[in-house]
Amino acid sequence: MSSSQGSRPLRIERDTLGEMYVPADAYYGAQTARAVDNFPISGLRFPRQFIRAFGLIKYAAARANVRLGLLDERRGNAIMQAAMEVAEGKLDDQFVVDVYQTGSGTSTNMNVNEVIAARANEILTGVRSAKGEVHPNDHVNMGQSTNDVFPTAIQVAGALSIKEELLPSLRTLLEELERKASEFEDVVKSGRTHLQDALPVTLGQEFGSYASLVRRSIASVEVGLKALLELPIGGTAVGTGLNRHPDFARLVCEELSRLTGLEFREAPDRFELMGAMSAVVQASGSLRMVAHALLKIVKDLRLMGSGPNTGFAEIEIPAVQPGSSIMPGKVNPVIPEAVGLIAVKVIANDVSVLLAAQLGELELNMGMPLIAYDFLHSIQILASGSRVLAKKCIAGIVANVERCRELAESSPALVTVVAPIVGYDKAAVIAKRVLEQRRSIKEVMVEELGLPREEVDRLLDLKKLTRPGIPAKAV
Amino acid sequence: MSSSQGSRPLRIERDTLGEMYVPADAYYGAQTARAVDNFPISGLRFPRQFIRAFGLIKYAAARANVRLGLLDERRGNAIMQAAMEVAEGKLDDQFVVDVYQTGSGTSTNMNVNEVIAARANEILTGVRSAKGEVHPNDHVNMGQSTNDVFPTAIQVAGALSIKEELLPSLRTLLEELERKASEFEDVVKSGRTHLQDALPVTLGQEFGSYASLVRRSIASVEVGLKALLELPIGGTAVGTGLNRHPDFARLVCEELSRLTGLEFREAPDRFELMGAMSAVVQASGSLRMVAHALLKIVKDLRLMGSGPNTGFAEIEIPAVQPGSSIMPGKVNPVIPEAVGLIAVKVIANDVSVLLAAQLGELELNMGMPLIAYDFLHSIQILASGSRVLAKKCIAGIVANVERCRELAESSPALVTVVAPIVGYDKAAVIAKRVLEQRRSIKEVMVEELGLPREEVDRLLDLKKLTRPGIPAKAV
Amino acid sequence: MSSSQGSRPLRIERDTLGEMYVPADAYYGAQTARAVDNFPISGLRFPRQFIRAFGLIKYAAARANVRLGLLDERRGNAIMQAAMEVAEGKLDDQFVVDVYQTGSGTSTNMNVNEVIAARANEILTGVRSAKGEVHPNDHVNMGQSTNDVFPTAIQVAGALSIKEELLPSLRTLLEELERKASEFEDVVKSGRTHLQDALPVTLGQEFGSYASLVRRSIASVEVGLKALLELPIGGTAVGTGLNRHPDFARLVCEELSRLTGLEFREAPDRFELMGAMSAVVQASGSLRMVAHALLKIVKDLRLMGSGPNTGFAEIEIPAVQPGSSIMPGKVNPVIPEAVGLIAVKVIANDVSVLLAAQLGELELNMGMPLIAYDFLHSIQILASGSRVLAKKCIAGIVANVERCRELAESSPALVTVVAPIVGYDKAAVIAKRVLEQRRSIKEVMVEELGLPREEVDRLLDLKKLTRPGIPAKAV
Amino acid sequence: MSSSQGSRPLRIERDTLGEMYVPADAYYGAQTARAVDNFPISGLRFPRQFIRAFGLIKYAAARANVRLGLLDERRGNAIMQAAMEVAEGKLDDQFVVDVYQTGSGTSTNMNVNEVIAARANEILTGVRSAKGEVHPNDHVNMGQSTNDVFPTAIQVAGALSIKEELLPSLRTLLEELERKASEFEDVVKSGRTHLQDALPVTLGQEFGSYASLVRRSIASVEVGLKALLELPIGGTAVGTGLNRHPDFARLVCEELSRLTGLEFREAPDRFELMGAMSAVVQASGSLRMVAHALLKIVKDLRLMGSGPNTGFAEIEIPAVQPGSSIMPGKVNPVIPEAVGLIAVKVIANDVSVLLAAQLGELELNMGMPLIAYDFLHSIQILASGSRVLAKKCIAGIVANVERCRELAESSPALVTVVAPIVGYDKAAVIAKRVLEQRRSIKEVMVEELGLPREEVDRLLDLKKLTRPGIPAKAV
Repeated sequence: MSSSQGSRPLRIERDTLGEMYVPADAYYGAQTARAVDNFPISGLRFPRQFIRAFGLIKYAAARANVRLGLLDERRGNAIMQAAMEVAEGKLDDQFVVDVYQTGSGTSTNMNVNEVIAARANEILTGVRSAKGEVHPNDHVNMGQSTNDVFPTAIQVAGALSIKEELLPSLRTLLEELERKASEFEDVVKSGRTHLQDALPVTLGQEFGSYASLVRRSIASVEVGLKALLELPIGGTAVGTGLNRHPDFARLVCEELSRLTGLEFREAPDRFELMGAMSAVVQASGSLRMVAHALLKIVKDLRLMGSGPNTGFAEIEIPAVQPGSSIMPGKVNPVIPEAVGLIAVKVIANDVSVLLAAQLGELELNMGMPLIAYDFLHSIQILASGSRVLAKKCIAGIVANVERCRELAESSPALVTVVAPIVGYDKAAVIAKRVLEQRRSIKEVMVEELGLPREEVDRLLDLKKLTRPGIPAKAV
Repeated sequence: MSSSQGSRPLRIERDTLGEMYVPADAYYGAQTARAVDNFPISGLRFPRQFIRAFGLIKYAAARANVRLGLLDERRGNAIMQAAMEVAEGKLDDQFVVDVYQTGSGTSTNMNVNEVIAARANEILTGVRSAKGEVHPNDHVNMGQSTNDVFPTAIQVAGALSIKEELLPSLRTLLEELERKASEFEDVVKSGRTHLQDALPVTLGQEFGSYASLVRRSIASVEVGLKALLELPIGGTAVGTGLNRHPDFARLVCEELSRLTGLEFREAPDRFELMGAMSAVVQASGSLRMVAHALLKIVKDLRLMGSGPNTGFAEIEIPAVQPGSSIMPGKVNPVIPEAVGLIAVKVIANDVSVLLAAQLGELELNMGMPLIAYDFLHSIQILASGSRVLAKKCIAGIVANVERCRELAESSPALVTVVAPIVGYDKAAVIAKRVLEQRRSIKEVMVEELGLPREEVDRLLDLKKLTRPGIPAKAV
Repeated sequence: MSSSQGSRPLRIERDTLGEMYVPADAYYGAQTARAVDNFPISGLRFPRQFIRAFGLIKYAAARANVRLGLLDERRGNAIMQAAMEVAEGKLDDQFVVDVYQTGSGTSTNMNVNEVIAARANEILTGVRSAKGEVHPNDHVNMGQSTNDVFPTAIQVAGALSIKEELLPSLRTLLEELERKASEFEDVVKSGRTHLQDALPVTLGQEFGSYASLVRRSIASVEVGLKALLELPIGGTAVGTGLNRHPDFARLVCEELSRLTGLEFREAPDRFELMGAMSAVVQASGSLRMVAHALLKIVKDLRLMGSGPNTGFAEIEIPAVQPGSSIMPGKVNPVIPEAVGLIAVKVIANDVSVLLAAQLGELELNMGMPLIAYDFLHSIQILASGSRVLAKKCIAGIVANVERCRELAESSPALVTVVAPIVGYDKAAVIAKRVLEQRRSIKEVMVEELGLPREEVDRLLDLKKLTRPGIPAKAV
Repeated sequence: MSSSQGSRPLRIERDTLGEMYVPADAYYGAQTARAVDNFPISGLRFPRQFIRAFGLIKYAAARANVRLGLLDERRGNAIMQAAMEVAEGKLDDQFVVDVYQTGSGTSTNMNVNEVIAARANEILTGVRSAKGEVHPNDHVNMGQSTNDVFPTAIQVAGALSIKEELLPSLRTLLEELERKASEFEDVVKSGRTHLQDALPVTLGQEFGSYASLVRRSIASVEVGLKALLELPIGGTAVGTGLNRHPDFARLVCEELSRLTGLEFREAPDRFELMGAMSAVVQASGSLRMVAHALLKIVKDLRLMGSGPNTGFAEIEIPAVQPGSSIMPGKVNPVIPEAVGLIAVKVIANDVSVLLAAQLGELELNMGMPLIAYDFLHSIQILASGSRVLAKKCIAGIVANVERCRELAESSPALVTVVAPIVGYDKAAVIAKRVLEQRRSIKEVMVEELGLPREEVDRLLDLKKLTRPGIPAKAV
């Protein structure tokens, strides 16, 4: 018998391997204590959303078992009350097992089972013990196995986070971007390709493309969310559903739907989800799409906001904090930068989720705890990052209209406008002359092409050049 | 003036930087020759599907420009004929630019423009020259820019490959897996979790889960395909569409749809696609889902087929070649292994596509040539790999029914069946006894629980244990 | 003026953007409070080792500035005392800025500067205020910039963690593996290639190869550690060292070496380290080598320990906790599984470090806070994981000697022994016969080759087959 | 009996599974033909360097076996001649097996064995047949197995490519960067952090940091090369060395060293290398370091070369080809862009190598063919990319000295110089004023600080600000 604790008062708990000391005031039991001993790895714990999902599932499972006549009401009600307390976060400090643990997550499922059992026993008898009238395996875990509960909890937690946090944040970001796209509709600026001067665009078109990226991200996340709604619950130990009532899974899904407002249902093939974590891999892939979108956006913003004097200086990004510990007065685009870190992390977490989902074989996926942590972390930071980006950055961006116009007018690529009439090769000669002689493009066009100045002015109406058409042919 | 060629007869071609020698019989011109000089990197060339897509696009563009009155019929028809020859593969040896080139793919677009121009000029005048009556930029590239044509070509090539190769292969694989799932419906075997003996499943359930994985992959790829159908063509240099007719993009999409049977249409936001390659990133993500599915399947197959004498030996994988250069008579699961390599490569290519799509900024994506190569390579190897897996492996798998049954009967996890009546803790004691005393589980159950032998036999009807229900409670 | 706090008593602090409320008992000041407001992202905080490194650097910097006559002793001593308290962990709860923040880590550097300044002011005057006699920028940050301090802190923290935690753990793991390699020296078992029966090896050879992998990992990490010892401190804002004394960096490195026992020195090129985080990228790559080694080892262990009845069952992995929430008596290889999760996470973190190190450009790397967190997290989990693997798993592994021998004898690949005399093709015929007729290989060899039974016994002396040589030719 | 061929004249070859048709003029035999049938996947073939390494190894093996008296001179000499022809590339068209094949690479090893056997038989008897006096397994493969030959070939090919191609290219790049660092020593320009105006640096310092990155890359690759020199040859089927002479491996390594000028030697632990491909994983990691360095360099170059009129325009990158198919006269930094693609590909290939090296278990690595292809591809493109970058880009870069100076002088961060005397907070006030009033920093400093103009000029001597020291304190 060993102990994982310090000098706090202790009590003895038992599991099938023997006895363990646990803190006298702990709700968890022997298996949890053993896991604490076995996995002194990182100190990382699962996030709130995940514990909440576990609580909701245990609540729904108890309710289903009571309705099916497999669990008496006395025990059932106590379990449901305890499970709801877990869902609501009242017992968060009882979940003490490291993220890096058995690949199935059994230690965390047993942590939950033991805490709920002890709390239920306390409700029923006043005695805080993981084994009593309510047993962690026989009653709290009834009709379940870690192998179906754990992936179900990942999916439920992920779906809730996406619905409650990520999608609203992305929609906020979309709105701010659309607002700016509209606000900057008439701000003509130089386009840049290869970072070289190109034809004019509007700042509004650029912000519009960021809005499109976020729109695509939202659609992608919604597909991912849909995949998460089909739950493997009911598969029990190996996918077959042994030792659970034929109606159990359906009832659990109905209850979870009622509790969350999401339309959970039984997966058509539990084996697939349990073995390959395929719904989560798919949903994680949709997060990567968001990361790609955000990274593109913030990299562009940083470029356009570069300066104030040595860079592009096309936009001003709101100052939210002093920029440098050594250079006084410096202000940096810190929000876009934070979002850059978030995007990179989500891309790396997606690698982590995929590789973890390849751990294990046959009837069990062995990467589940890591998948849970990284997948939920990605959702969280994308959600908070998108919201912060929208509110603290995008909303306050100001265009340097004059600077944008000046740069646009200076681009030698404007010569492209006459290519349809003089041909590519001749136009290239004009462009070279402009650059070598550092002269105004309009001047050279007048001179080289013998066009009247007004015609050149008409051709180089920058705003018109930001729309489809062939000005030189008046199309 | 420099030359990239050996001792073949040469001719001189010109571009805006000056003169270049090219082989006298080449269709390509000065810009291509310059690119050959500039990028002596890998020797890799773009695949057939990509050249085909380029040919189709140039054909459709010429047709649109003729219809819009911007290109005369004489030149237009010559360009269309030449472009169709490119599409059909008749000029494949003329595409000589390395994959590793300018990030926009301009060198390849100009290679195509020059080859089509020279071939068109040959058709019109008998002279094989990239610049003549037909000009590579002014006529072949009319209304286009690399910045919209290149990503359009990636999307068209990808969509065609997915439709013509990948989806049919995946459907073939799905059919074979479904056939086996049905064939193995009654083959009871031991489930394994953590690679440890667990409760029974059927081999059919396992193959059914592989079928489900492939079904999900197909659905995922179909979403990816849909994303590819919205084309950025019409964006020209920076997304705005300068120098192309307002109706050009619509006509090109209609023509491409007619030529391919796919429903291409104008993208709602060209800037987004051109800057972030977001449709391709999305579609590449769907390929990763396929890779994940295939990897899971072949890893399981290798395990179940391990042996013949020292492994699981639950199935026999068809022998398609001698297995070892040193161990005579050895036969290995070489097809699943090849598919394992394919899956890893697709996962890595997906990383490549994502990172490449982050090269560049503002109006241009700078990772396009690499994206084209890796994305199309992934589609190709997934398509051929899935077909080979279906036909040369899955179709011929044989179950070792007897071996499966024996192992299933030997699993100490069968004790789980009585847990609902005797409780988890008591059941664990029985399991330990079975293992320590190396006795039959039925025997110990009779002895320890005082159950009649027939009742034990009924409880341990393995086939029944592979379905939902609680045998001990007759549910 | 805004506030990031709840209902605690507050005080006002100022920075160059204006006033901020902070909790009255906080040591941090306005910039920290602003960062808390700006980055409500993940809740993740930097680990102990990182705060420790920051404290040591600030201590060393103050000491250097005092010695150089730039900082008076009164302020210098107060800063040193406060910095040492930070290094020792006494003020850990004051570091409240999220990991996802400005890409330079300025918010964390200012958090440290403000806490040390406030504590130093408290020491000097009894007043806890970030700005007083001691100023966070002018005195605590003297001769420094986030741009050199932050990467220096990553390198110092990484070097300390590697030296104090990772290398000792890896050496412990190496010892246990070497011990087992020696213990299992005579345990002959079947080799497996393609998971198919192959020629015999010893279990000792297998554990020896795991020891070799760990040995290579240690060597690789030692190279990584060496890269970390060259510090960018002294580069200040952009690498040039403006506003620090010419001798400052040397003195800081000397002091850090004295404090840590590691031989830190000035980097030959600060620009390189600050811009590209190249030393950390390199060191992170060495962690990936460890992950690769651990993953290979634990995957093999899981296979060899598969069973007890339906798998390989060549070894027994110590039981450290009940394996299943539903299957009583099940015991799983949970420690190898946890190490599998760790390995995957380290691989993904290495991707994260690399991609983060590509954020930013020119004089500043913008991925630093994420690099810090992920790099240090990888070191920590590898260190704890290796130790747990050594002590809770490897040390207790038991070989099933008899089972190993039986499987080795059953391998049809043993026929390879006679190939040098009868040829590959004939030997293949014998192997086929053995398999088809399910007969003993010795029997078939006697019969087919007309060899005396003793000769066959001599040829198939399994232990001898695990060493180089050609038994059939008595070489 | 099946055939993989078209309508060419055929002959029959045999292996242990039966008969196969092969083209009458082919050197390969039945196993190769079978592999062609089995793996119609990608069309990718192994590169020259790999076939060369295989030829050298077979040559060395034959020579060793002759010296050890195991192979008669007649056969031995024929094999050696044939193997040398393979090494020299004379039979390259005979290596027809796809990269995606059995994970062990057996098909390629047998392809080599068959071609050498057939060519040797042709030399000896005039008959081109894979089985004759010389047998592919019994003689060409004598003392070997794919399991030791294939990884040996990867290591030999990798070592040769690194020595002959990559290191010379990197050294060329280093020289050009050092030359530019020296040339640009006095070109003062604005540093940029967060892409915001910062303190001055010299362009020479920036190029010096690129040189440092390449120096670190070279050192890293040299460590990787060293790892490759320890060969697993001699391990035969499972690492033990069964069926090879005790002196065989030593003799092969000596011969390979003689043939290549590299110091190959027997690996201390063959099992480790064969099972985990650890030497190659390590070497691949060193390539990633190069990729990281190159990517940082080219991203900076693109930024500094942005313009000509709307960007930074601090340097001019040599024009090597017309930049745009639509914008006449545009010139783009195409070489840096190509190097960007190369860097991304190498990063992705490194992921591929790592994941492939995790395929397989126990005595065999199953990712070898993919590892071979991707690892060698990375070396090749890094080598050619570095050389092209050095010669076609770096060597021709020109500094816009005047522009650099103007921007440097405009940076509001110059106020930092006075922070050591007036304090950070006061200096920030000055910086704000400079920006808000768009006035010269010198003017504001004179006015706000009451400093004589000459003193301000002295303080803001930009060149002096690029070196360590505290100008305001005359340190």
